[in-house]
Amino acid sequence: MKELGSTDKTRIRRGPKRAVFDRAMLYQIFDQAHVAHVGFAVDEQSYVIPMLCWRVDNRLYIHGSNGSRMIKALTEGGQCCVTATLLDGMVLSKSAFHHSTNYRSAVVFGRFSKVTDDAEINESLKLFLEHIAPGRWDKVRPPSENELRATTILSIELEEASVKVRTGGPNEDKEDIDLPVWSGEMVIRQKVGQMIPDQYSPENEAAPDYSAAWGDRWEQ
Amino acid sequence: MKELGSTDKTRIRRGPKRAVFDRAMLYQIFDQAHVAHVGFAVDEQSYVIPMLCWRVDNRLYIHGSNGSRMIKALTEGGQCCVTATLLDGMVLSKSAFHHSTNYRSAVVFGRFSKVTDDAEINESLKLFLEHIAPGRWDKVRPPSENELRATTILSIELEEASVKVRTGGPNEDKEDIDLPVWSGEMVIRQKVGQMIPDQYSPENEAAPDYSAAWGDRWEQ
Repeated sequence: MKELGSTDKTRIRRGPKRAVFDRAMLYQIFDQAHVAHVGFAVDEQSYVIPMLCWRVDNRLYIHGSNGSRMIKALTEGGQCCVTATLLDGMVLSKSAFHHSTNYRSAVVFGRFSKVTDDAEINESLKLFLEHIAPGRWDKVRPPSENELRATTILSIELEEASVKVRTGGPNEDKEDIDLPVWSGEMVIRQKVGQMIPDQYSPENEAAPDYSAAWGDRWEQ
Repeated sequence: MKELGSTDKTRIRRGPKRAVFDRAMLYQIFDQAHVAHVGFAVDEQSYVIPMLCWRVDNRLYIHGSNGSRMIKALTEGGQCCVTATLLDGMVLSKSAFHHSTNYRSAVVFGRFSKVTDDAEINESLKLFLEHIAPGRWDKVRPPSENELRATTILSIELEEASVKVRTGGPNEDKEDIDLPVWSGEMVIRQKVGQMIPDQYSPENEAAPDYSAAWGDRWEQ
C-alpha cells in the first residue's frame, strides 16, 4: 500500500511523533467514524458541516440534497478539507499540564466531484446503506427514479491526507510520579444500544444486529 | 435566555423543521461533545481540526501550543466556523431513501480571541480540567509558570450560531408501511468504559468516576 504523501499542508508540525503515514489507518478512521466534518469557504467565511461518509477503495463519499449551497461550494470553490475524529479516551495525568487525549484523526484535502451516472448513484447508495446496516439493502425498498434524482452524491480522493494517533497513558514529569493521585487512561467508545422498533415494524421480526458496523453493543 | 440570531449564514435552508433556535440546546451540544471541529481558511485552502472544547457562559474555549499556524489563522484570518456533533442514532426505514440519522449539531461563526492574562489562563485551564474530570483540579499538580506560558487559550462568542436536531423513528412513505422489514431507531451513544491505571498510579487509590461528565458507563 502506498504511503500517504507529505506536502506542506499535510506535514504534521505539532506532535510529529503522533503522525502516522499509514493508508490502512486512514481507511480505518473514516470507516469507523461514519461521520466526517466537511470544511469549505464561501467569500472568506469558513463552514464546517457534519456529514455521514462512506469509503470505497481510495475515495470517500458523502451525499446531500440537490441544489444545496454546500454541494456547489464543494465542487466549484476552493480546496475543501474533510476530517474524521475518533475519541478513544482521556489521559489522566498527575499534573494539570500533562493531561491529554487518546484519539485517531484523519484530515483530507482536495475537491469533491459529483457522481453523475444513475447506475453509479444506485450502486453508491447500496454501499452507503451496507456500511451503516450490513445486509439491509436487499430487504428494503430500493430507491425510485425520483428518489435517485433528488440525491446528489459527491466523492473525494483520499490522496493528500494526514493521520494523527495517540494511544497509551500519560507522560509524567519525573518530579510528579510519586504524587498520590490516580493516573492512567479513561477509555471512551461509541457504542450501539437499544433497537427501538416504530409502529410499523412487524411484531414477529427480530431487531437486526448492526453493531459490528458501529462498534460493540452496550449491555441493557 | 435570548434566542439565537438568524442571519443569512445561520438560517437553516435544508430541513428547516430540524432547526432549533434554542440557546440551552446549543450549550448542551458543546458541553456534551467535548470535541469541536474548528474550520478556518488560509490562502483559499480550508482546514478542519478537531479540538477539545469547553464552554463558560456564552463563550467556547479551546487551547493549543503557542505559535501554531492555527492559532494565527483563528485570531487574524477570516471568519472561523466551529462545529460540534452528537450522533444519537441511526434511523432504519423500510425504504433505502428514508434512512436517516438522529443527531444534535451546533455550528458557530466568528473569530477567536486570545486569553492573555496569566490568572485568567490558569482559571480557564481549571474549568477545562473540571469539565473533563470534575473534582480533579484540586488533586493534581497545578500548572507551573512555564507551563502556563507554553499554552495558548482562545475563546469565541456563541452568538452567530445555528443548531439542528433530529429525533425519533423513520418517516415512511404510506406505500411502504406494510413491508415486512424491521424499522425503527438504532441508538448510538458515546460511553465511558475501563479506567486503566498506569505504572505510577497508587495501588490503594480507587479509579475516579468521571462518567457523569462523559455519558454513562458501559458494563464491563
